[in-house]
Amino acid sequence: MNNPVLVEVLRGTLVESRHTGAVAAVDADGHDLLALGDVKRRVFPRSAIKAIQALPLVESGAADRYGFGPEELALACASHSGEPGHVAVVERMLARLGLGEAALKCGVHWPIHQASAQALARAGGAARAVHNNCSGKHAGFLCVACAIDADVARYMQPAHPVQRFVKDTLEALSESLLSQDVCAVDGCSVPTWALPLDKLALALARFATGTHMLPGRARAAARLREACTTHPWHVAGSGRFCTEVMQKFGSRIFLKTGAEGVYCAGLPELGIGIAVKCDDGTGRAAEVMMAATLDRLLNNDADSAALEPFVRPQLRNWNGIVVGGMRPTEAFRP
Amino acid sequence: MNNPVLVEVLRGTLVESRHTGAVAAVDADGHDLLALGDVKRRVFPRSAIKAIQALPLVESGAADRYGFGPEELALACASHSGEPGHVAVVERMLARLGLGEAALKCGVHWPIHQASAQALARAGGAARAVHNNCSGKHAGFLCVACAIDADVARYMQPAHPVQRFVKDTLEALSESLLSQDVCAVDGCSVPTWALPLDKLALALARFATGTHMLPGRARAAARLREACTTHPWHVAGSGRFCTEVMQKFGSRIFLKTGAEGVYCAGLPELGIGIAVKCDDGTGRAAEVMMAATLDRLLNNDADSAALEPFVRPQLRNWNGIVVGGMRPTEAFRP
Repeated sequence: MNNPVLVEVLRGTLVESRHTGAVAAVDADGHDLLALGDVKRRVFPRSAIKAIQALPLVESGAADRYGFGPEELALACASHSGEPGHVAVVERMLARLGLGEAALKCGVHWPIHQASAQALARAGGAARAVHNNCSGKHAGFLCVACAIDADVARYMQPAHPVQRFVKDTLEALSESLLSQDVCAVDGCSVPTWALPLDKLALALARFATGTHMLPGRARAAARLREACTTHPWHVAGSGRFCTEVMQKFGSRIFLKTGAEGVYCAGLPELGIGIAVKCDDGTGRAAEVMMAATLDRLLNNDADSAALEPFVRPQLRNWNGIVVGGMRPTEAFRP
Repeated sequence: MNNPVLVEVLRGTLVESRHTGAVAAVDADGHDLLALGDVKRRVFPRSAIKAIQALPLVESGAADRYGFGPEELALACASHSGEPGHVAVVERMLARLGLGEAALKCGVHWPIHQASAQALARAGGAARAVHNNCSGKHAGFLCVACAIDADVARYMQPAHPVQRFVKDTLEALSESLLSQDVCAVDGCSVPTWALPLDKLALALARFATGTHMLPGRARAAARLREACTTHPWHVAGSGRFCTEVMQKFGSRIFLKTGAEGVYCAGLPELGIGIAVKCDDGTGRAAEVMMAATLDRLLNNDADSAALEPFVRPQLRNWNGIVVGGMRPTEAFRP
C-alpha cells in the first residue's frame, strides 16, 4: 500500500513535487488521535528519539554526578548545527568527563550551519568530531559509561551497557520488543531500532507526560523536556525548525527531527505524542507534515497563525524571488 | 493516482525510505519503449534540458562568432559544481563577450563541490555568480543576446528573444504547446515550462538523433552532444553522476540532471530519449531510477556491470561503515 500524498511542492501555480508519508498521534494509553497512512509500518527513529536515548543519562544519576546542567542536557538530546556555541558545550561535557575529543566515536563532518562551516574554513580549521550533529548525544553516552565504570571505547556497540539501557528504555516507552532483526547502524554508528510509527508516537506521548513510568524516569523525562524547551537553540541551531517552533511554543511543544524524514513531538499539556515519517526521507516535507499535524491537534487560531510559516513555507530562488511554496494536502483536513 | 515506488533505501536489511516516480522512454517518433507511472503528467524539466536551451546558441551562429569551443559549449549545457576549472571557462566566455560577471543574472551560491567551497572560504573568498551551477548556461544566453544585438540586461525574461528562441526550440522538439499557464520561474530566474514526461523524453530522443529537425539544428544538436560527452567533467563535476556515466559511456549516453528529481538522457545509437521524474524531487533516487532505466534499455552484461554502482549504490555513515544502500524495485523488471 502506498501512503497518501501529504505535502505538495508548488512552482508557480503547478505542483512540481509530491511527498507521501504517514502520521501517528496517540495519547499515553496508545489511543489513536490521528492516523494518516500506514502507522503500523516500522520506521527507524534515528535522531528523533535522542531525548529518549538520553533518559538513562539523567535517570542513572550520571548527569548530576558530572554536573551537567540544562545546556548539557539539551546538547545530549540535540542534532546540533555545529555552531561555535554548540561545540563549546560539547567540549565542556568532555572536559567534565576528563576525556578528549578522540573519545567521540560519532565520526566527523563539517558544521551543518553554513556560516559556521565557512568561518571554520576561513580560519584554517577543519571538520572535527565535535562538529558532528550527534556529538552531544555521544558525550551523553560517554557520561553514562564513565558513571557506571563501563568501557568508554565501545559505548556505541549494541551489547554495551549504555546501548542496552537505551534499548530497554525505548522498549518500555513504546511497549515494543526490539529484536536484532530490526536493528541497524545509525549515521553516527550507534544502533537504531525500527518500530511501528504508532509505537514511536506512544513513546513520545509517555516521554511528554511521564505516565506509565517509575517516578525516577518520569522526573528524568521532565528534566530533559525542560532543558530542551528552555534551550531550543542548543537542540538544533539558528534557523532550524525544531529551534524556531520550541522558541515560539516553549514548554507546550517538545520537537525533535531525525534523519530520513522522521519527526517526533510531544505535547505535554494535551498528553499527545506524534510521530511523522516522510516516506522519501526528505526533511523539508517532514517539517510541513509535522507543522500541519501540530496545527490540526492544537486546533486554535492563535497557534495556527504561529505555525503558518511552517505549514505553508515559501520557496525562493537564488535571486530571492518567490518561485513557489509547499503546502499540506487535503489529507490533513478533519 | 500515485506513481509506483521505483526506488527503495535500505538500512541494514529493512527498507527505510521509498521513492515513487515515473519514467518515460520513447524513440524519435514518439513510440513508447518504456512507461512507468503517469508519463502524461507535466513536469518542470528545470536544468535537465540545458542542452536544448543551448541549441539556439549554436544554431544561430552565436557560439562560432564568439569563438566558443567544446569546453564553452559543455559549460553552456552544464549544472557545474563550481570547481575552479568550471569557473575559469565561464570567465573566459564572459571575456569573449566583453562582459563582466555582473552581467550574469543567475544569482549567487557557493560551489556545489564541497572541497572547492572550503578552499574558497579558506582563501578569504566569497560566493559569486560564476560559482552558480547555471552560470555557464547564462553565459550562453548572453552570447546569443550579444550576437543578435538584443538587450543583455533582460535575457532571463520570458518575452526576451533569447527565451523565445528557447521556448520555440523546446516546443518543436517536444511537439508540445507551452502556454503561459505552465510557465514558472527556475532557480536561476529564467522561465521553465512544464511539459508531459513522455514529451520531454521525445525532445531528448530528437536531440539525441537529430531526426525531424532542419539540418542546421541537427548539426547544432550533434555539436552539443559531442561537446558534453567528450567533456563530461565540464557538464557537472568531480564525483557527479552525469560526469561519471558519460566518462564511462562516451558518445553512447548523453545525460543531464535537473533540480527536483528530474533526469534526461539520450541514447544516439539506439535512438532513444529518456525522461525520469522522482516525485519527491530527490536527486539520489532520480539517479537510481535513471541508472536502472539505462540498464534495462541497454540490456547487455557489460553495460550492466558498468552501471551496477549507480543502480545499487551503497550508503556509508560518517565513520565509513556501510549502513545500507539503494535499489530499484520490481517495477523495472521487463
